[in-house]
Amino acid sequence: MNQNYQATSVGDIEARGRVTLHNELALTGSEISINELPPGASVPFVHCHKRNEEVYLVVKGKGRFHVDGDEFEVGEGSVVRVDPAGGRCITADQQSSLRYICIQTEAKSLVQFTESDGVILETKPSWLQ
Amino acid sequence: MNQNYQATSVGDIEARGRVTLHNELALTGSEISINELPPGASVPFVHCHKRNEEVYLVVKGKGRFHVDGDEFEVGEGSVVRVDPAGGRCITADQQSSLRYICIQTEAKSLVQFTESDGVILETKPSWLQ
Repeated sequence: MNQNYQATSVGDIEARGRVTLHNELALTGSEISINELPPGASVPFVHCHKRNEEVYLVVKGKGRFHVDGDEFEVGEGSVVRVDPAGGRCITADQQSSLRYICIQTEAKSLVQFTESDGVILETKPSWLQ
Repeated sequence: MNQNYQATSVGDIEARGRVTLHNELALTGSEISINELPPGASVPFVHCHKRNEEVYLVVKGKGRFHVDGDEFEVGEGSVVRVDPAGGRCITADQQSSLRYICIQTEAKSLVQFTESDGVILETKPSWLQ
């Protein structure tokens, strides 16, 4: 298959608990996980990274985030960047599940983006013709 | 501020329409946008990229995706990788808004991830002590 994209559906995240996309989508610039912690559940350890920046995006529910001894509440719309050296952990609240997306990328790898990297084309999708 | 993280809340995505995180979180490995298209709305052009791989994660609602002339339905749980050269566009359905996350990274920049990049630490968050 020689095409410029790959698409799938991750299905029921609540049932699957954790889905990782790097291999499923043949990603080359990131690893992305979609995660659902049930009420009271935590990632069972604090970890840091050798090279990768991580970004956490909370999609649903409530929980708490830990970095280097700092702790704070997170909920829908919370976004957190953690540098490689940061010691991080995340938990769902006792009364709420927590759904979040975690994006790993090589720190300092982005060269340009959006206006400086995107090129508008003359082609149109069916709904704009 | 000399700390290994930055955190904020993006607030009401439905009201804001589009939030970009690169500058808000001082990201170095990605640009990430959180987007909400109202019913019937489309990104108004097809575009490709010079260097960046994009990943689209649909969080809520229904819509359609276009890449290089291929078109397919997307909804909660749909995930799409698009290589730099792919000409892409996304629209919400006429009867549904569409919320999605778009992640731009330098193509082929990821060196290692998860088990090979993460290091488990001995520290504990308050909820695991």
